[in-house]
Amino acid sequence: MKTILLIGAGRSASSLISYLLNTSSSMDWKVTVADFSYELAEKKVNGHPQGRALAFDVNNAAQRKAEIGAADIVISLLPPALHYLVAEDCVTLRKHLVTASYVSPEIKELDARAKEAGVLLLNEIGLDPGIDHMSAMEIIDRIKHEGGHIISFRSYCGGLMEPESGNNPWGYKFTWNPRNVVVAGQGTAKYQHEGRHKYLPYSRLFLQTEQIEVPGHGMFEAYANRDSLSYREPYGLGAVPGLLRGTLRMPGYCKAWHVFVKLGITDDSYIIEDSEHLTYADFIRSYLPSGMEDMPLRTALAAFMGTETDTSALDRVEWLGLLEPTPIELCRATPAQILQHLLEEKWRLQPGDKDMIVMQHQFVYTVGNLTKELRSSMIVKGEDEIYTAMAKTVGLPAAIAAKLILMDKISLTGVHIPTDRQLYHPVLEELKEYGITFTEEERTL
Amino acid sequence: MKTILLIGAGRSASSLISYLLNTSSSMDWKVTVADFSYELAEKKVNGHPQGRALAFDVNNAAQRKAEIGAADIVISLLPPALHYLVAEDCVTLRKHLVTASYVSPEIKELDARAKEAGVLLLNEIGLDPGIDHMSAMEIIDRIKHEGGHIISFRSYCGGLMEPESGNNPWGYKFTWNPRNVVVAGQGTAKYQHEGRHKYLPYSRLFLQTEQIEVPGHGMFEAYANRDSLSYREPYGLGAVPGLLRGTLRMPGYCKAWHVFVKLGITDDSYIIEDSEHLTYADFIRSYLPSGMEDMPLRTALAAFMGTETDTSALDRVEWLGLLEPTPIELCRATPAQILQHLLEEKWRLQPGDKDMIVMQHQFVYTVGNLTKELRSSMIVKGEDEIYTAMAKTVGLPAAIAAKLILMDKISLTGVHIPTDRQLYHPVLEELKEYGITFTEEERTL
Repeated sequence: MKTILLIGAGRSASSLISYLLNTSSSMDWKVTVADFSYELAEKKVNGHPQGRALAFDVNNAAQRKAEIGAADIVISLLPPALHYLVAEDCVTLRKHLVTASYVSPEIKELDARAKEAGVLLLNEIGLDPGIDHMSAMEIIDRIKHEGGHIISFRSYCGGLMEPESGNNPWGYKFTWNPRNVVVAGQGTAKYQHEGRHKYLPYSRLFLQTEQIEVPGHGMFEAYANRDSLSYREPYGLGAVPGLLRGTLRMPGYCKAWHVFVKLGITDDSYIIEDSEHLTYADFIRSYLPSGMEDMPLRTALAAFMGTETDTSALDRVEWLGLLEPTPIELCRATPAQILQHLLEEKWRLQPGDKDMIVMQHQFVYTVGNLTKELRSSMIVKGEDEIYTAMAKTVGLPAAIAAKLILMDKISLTGVHIPTDRQLYHPVLEELKEYGITFTEEERTL
Repeated sequence: MKTILLIGAGRSASSLISYLLNTSSSMDWKVTVADFSYELAEKKVNGHPQGRALAFDVNNAAQRKAEIGAADIVISLLPPALHYLVAEDCVTLRKHLVTASYVSPEIKELDARAKEAGVLLLNEIGLDPGIDHMSAMEIIDRIKHEGGHIISFRSYCGGLMEPESGNNPWGYKFTWNPRNVVVAGQGTAKYQHEGRHKYLPYSRLFLQTEQIEVPGHGMFEAYANRDSLSYREPYGLGAVPGLLRGTLRMPGYCKAWHVFVKLGITDDSYIIEDSEHLTYADFIRSYLPSGMEDMPLRTALAAFMGTETDTSALDRVEWLGLLEPTPIELCRATPAQILQHLLEEKWRLQPGDKDMIVMQHQFVYTVGNLTKELRSSMIVKGEDEIYTAMAKTVGLPAAIAAKLILMDKISLTGVHIPTDRQLYHPVLEELKEYGITFTEEERTL
């Protein structure tokens, strides 16, 4: 009997825990679900005979070492900054670790020690990062195997809502960390276009968007991610002339979000001293130039944006309640916190809501004297507000990887992301059983 | 005989050193000019019998303590981050310290220890900060003394060029730290307008400018400084309804600089990997949206800005050489470094160039049942490219303050800025002898 220690039973753990518990009988696993909240852990275990709920404090070194020491593999869904504590113990105690988070510099430094200990620290095996790596690498390796030469790789992903559940003017609700949505893209986006580096500062990010078509699902909007260039090396793309990664939103979202960027209210770096005495309307007015005090707020905002008053971008802004004289009721909050506070209320998942993950890779490559374009698209829909597509696509890859490791099917040691075929191939194969599939279309240009 | 230790003999030290040496005979001072470069110190001392040049390494603790211990007062013109080393020793060795830099958190923490030691750590006694504090406080105290109530205080300062020396389309050359000019204003400007906090993000900073008239000198452009609100407390202004501090530039500068902000090339937070292989034209193109590759660069830039091709903003940009296929010749530089590199060449002071400091305070206040407007303006012109108005206005206040302290005319101890009348009054009086004067106009509204 093998023991799996899962640390973190929050929002994105539901499908992962279901998979582990459902698989535990046939595989003879014991599954420990550890969370700071015992209730949450217990609720997720739901009395399963192979499951065990555990009140767990990651900062309690004795407990951490005891539980990791008793496990055969650890899966961590902790906030990214806390993985290191677990990873360090995993190396010392010679236990494999699986996470869905980006490799941090601290984790990266454990590579040599992990190799020495014969331990695999597998990161970035969730959705994005995770399924994006695996599905892209499968195509990249295939094109290379066929003697092809990649000219352009563009990859998009969005955690969206099914159309009937995205029943608000933004077509958006929160299925993951709201703060990350509010501060998304701050800094400068870097990508590669026609053989040149391109830079796009945050102030223009939500204006310079692209339209992306997903066959059978219509059009989406994409804005560029922060650092597309960093994917060259792990994907073995070298000096590929075209490289861009982007985030998908429903059409119209970006233009409306740009109102916030232009106002300046997505900033999380300073405090609005008197926020608890302000209404949302006051808050917006404090970002408008002087001289608009006597105009109705929507008229002022239209003048500020240089648009008509009746745009759908302003409809979206107004729908959130940002133009209302409603008290903010947050004390000494940053602008981003004020915006997030309102969005969390307006963009909250409702019972029965179904989310939808959209991913698309676009390749242009030459093979022989042909130039081909390949689009590979994935759509995954959630079951309800608990078993979301987000939880499924983040949790299942990690769960399947953990199973493969426990079955001794993975020979890797050290710090890895799932760009190796021995990882991505079996994980992608099994994901198909859960409806996580890609549809390809190819044409010769 | 008293000894003054001046640390730092760079660009802004010339007038300060002249003042100290010229005053040294009558006051019986010994003036030690300490700099990392002995040549520079020696050149500035220029064989003066009361002067002594010293090769000085601020990181050499033994030398630092020995020299500070042998002095009666220390003036530090070091880069701001290094003042703390000197201040710490000054407290321990019971020596007064004068700097023209902002009070850092580390310096602030020395307040109690400095008071205990009977030592004055006087900071922000240069131009801005310095003359701004003193001249504003003189008026604020006077208005309060007359029973007036300040409704609005707006204060502007710019280190500019005399019109005939500002002989380029920007009307600007560097008289202080070029990097600070390039990254000026990044973040969000905060000010107070008609009783409300106002916020202005960097992306709009150089668009939302004001026109400022200085009698006899025409119009200037002002953009808002980062944090005007922080002046409420030290100036005793409480919840004043209007409060803004701004930076002055020649008309047209801000609109042209906004081209750089909108492109994104003032960013100092990331590296352009291939910068040594790029020309300035390539650099600019890497910030333009795709699809403009075939347009002449100036045409593309006009389309990007949404303007005609023949604007004076684009004239200014083109004059710098940013649209030319000239190699950048900087390796792994940030965008801000690339821009600074070019500006340092184009905006370099030439022999004989005269700079010009412009400062203006604008007050609106009520007294009895009258509402009055008071403008107080200062113009200081440089003699040449060495004895600049910048060096004069930064250095003389510090030098005069040091003299007052040595003459035991200042009773303050602890960490201070010159907002106290016993400091600002005699310093402003003596500055008049050097042509550093304010002209006031008042009218009843």
